[in-house]
Amino acid sequence: MAAVPPPSPSALVAAVDLGGTKTAGAIVTGAGELLARSEGPTAADGDAEAVFAGVARVLEELAGHPAWPGVAAVGVGSAGPVDTAAGTVSPVNIPSWRGFPLVRRIAGRTALPVRLLGDGVALAEAEHWLGAAAGYRDALCMVVSTGVGGGLVLDGRVHPGPSGNAGHIGHVSVQWDGEPCPCGGRGCLEGLASGPAIVRHARAAGWRPAGGSPLTARAVADAARTGDGAALAAFDLAGRALAAAIAGTAALVELQAVVIGGGVAQSGSLLFDPLARHLTHYAGLPFTRGLHLHPARFGPDAGLIGAAAAALRG
Amino acid sequence: MAAVPPPSPSALVAAVDLGGTKTAGAIVTGAGELLARSEGPTAADGDAEAVFAGVARVLEELAGHPAWPGVAAVGVGSAGPVDTAAGTVSPVNIPSWRGFPLVRRIAGRTALPVRLLGDGVALAEAEHWLGAAAGYRDALCMVVSTGVGGGLVLDGRVHPGPSGNAGHIGHVSVQWDGEPCPCGGRGCLEGLASGPAIVRHARAAGWRPAGGSPLTARAVADAARTGDGAALAAFDLAGRALAAAIAGTAALVELQAVVIGGGVAQSGSLLFDPLARHLTHYAGLPFTRGLHLHPARFGPDAGLIGAAAAALRG
Repeated sequence: MAAVPPPSPSALVAAVDLGGTKTAGAIVTGAGELLARSEGPTAADGDAEAVFAGVARVLEELAGHPAWPGVAAVGVGSAGPVDTAAGTVSPVNIPSWRGFPLVRRIAGRTALPVRLLGDGVALAEAEHWLGAAAGYRDALCMVVSTGVGGGLVLDGRVHPGPSGNAGHIGHVSVQWDGEPCPCGGRGCLEGLASGPAIVRHARAAGWRPAGGSPLTARAVADAARTGDGAALAAFDLAGRALAAAIAGTAALVELQAVVIGGGVAQSGSLLFDPLARHLTHYAGLPFTRGLHLHPARFGPDAGLIGAAAAALRG
Repeated sequence: MAAVPPPSPSALVAAVDLGGTKTAGAIVTGAGELLARSEGPTAADGDAEAVFAGVARVLEELAGHPAWPGVAAVGVGSAGPVDTAAGTVSPVNIPSWRGFPLVRRIAGRTALPVRLLGDGVALAEAEHWLGAAAGYRDALCMVVSTGVGGGLVLDGRVHPGPSGNAGHIGHVSVQWDGEPCPCGGRGCLEGLASGPAIVRHARAAGWRPAGGSPLTARAVADAARTGDGAALAAFDLAGRALAAAIAGTAALVELQAVVIGGGVAQSGSLLFDPLARHLTHYAGLPFTRGLHLHPARFGPDAGLIGAAAAALRG
């Protein structure tokens, strides 16, 4: 594999992270420093132009920063699916954007080259550049949160796939005869290991939130820490589903490390311990054993850092 | 991606295909023509030197061919797991070979450079070079036979992974709470879609072989062609398990095509029709739809052609 040269620390790019609830932007240096930030809500239920107006506002605010004239490119991480070949995005949670030409529209406003990537791929870019996957040749970087997503590092480089959606581990089926998934499949990892799935498992096993507590994975985690059996079982089940999917990924592409971020991963050992235990069974082939598990370094900034990494490579 | 230049048609390499039952060899041209062949049984239950003696005999026979002096390298496809970084092999069905230094031993006999690859990776090399995966940028090449294995083509090149075992789709779990698999996991694809699994499903559903017929997937296929419900259900179940695993692979790495060979795939539409039908559900994400399914071009020669392809690249 050819080594990818690191960016010059003094290089400057703009990064945009477009999610279903917020649109964030930053000017980022070649060292991964965020010089300026801007953020606003995503008008996810608005028409296509209303959603883009949020992106335009973020870019406008960044363009007011004294460093802007040095910005060489824009990296855009977007909720998926994306189509990097066409330069369009169709985020599940933004119904008015179907095949929306985000690359062309941002290029039109900024007159800069634009690099588009899916949010899972952006996460992998961030963690491989400066985070917990740095130095690994082959790694899976995941988010376990309201949804489950990810991106792959193969042969020392992020593997976006031809349309920029590779690493979509949330829709790997680990239970082919399981519950139907909105994607059309059954028993997808997202339906078993996401935050809402953990709440569902816990409730099915008898967990009841303390009076007034919200129905969140965090509340289940709090209960698990007090020894609540149903809550512990829900995390065990999520960890087992993750283990099956991760082991399958390791069998398919070979991995040395798995990096996990997102709200559910912040439960720490409640999730990582059962995951590691189940992995010893599911990842039993000689070349899948000994996977390193790491919590992600980046939280909400992963999308910006990852989009910047892609833009810095040009 | 950088294009891989095709080999010169007049180049010559030797190829060895080491399986649990036979060891085959050939001198292969840069055009994929097999000039000379040699083959013998694998002494799978013998000691390590007895197994290697079979390889040595094959090489000796090839070395007697007038074209041998032009041979520039040896490619070796081996039953797995292999460790291409170490140059060793540990085939499941050859107990006396655990970490056997096959690369060093063949280099010692031939004084030629040796390229080692797993048999699934060799299949992908063959089909991508001259077979049904040629021209695809991203493809999964599989064998569905006594076992289930495979190899991946990503970004226009075969992806062996650091140890040469990538593409091991037979040990992807599609039923995390399913039957235990010898690999340590549960519900692995191989246990649901291999020939023996199809026989098991058919028998569980009430199929009984006609008097004296063997208990093979071919006999189940014959029954299915006469409309036997249990036999048809067994192929449907195998097709569904394959669909779940293939869709998961497409979500993880993005694929345009899947190529399937091996004895069970020779059942043709009995396997391909249910597979295609179930794929429309499991592969429902926009970037996983529209996968092209192809029968493999190469049968028993896939290992030799694939090992030659790797050796020709040097």
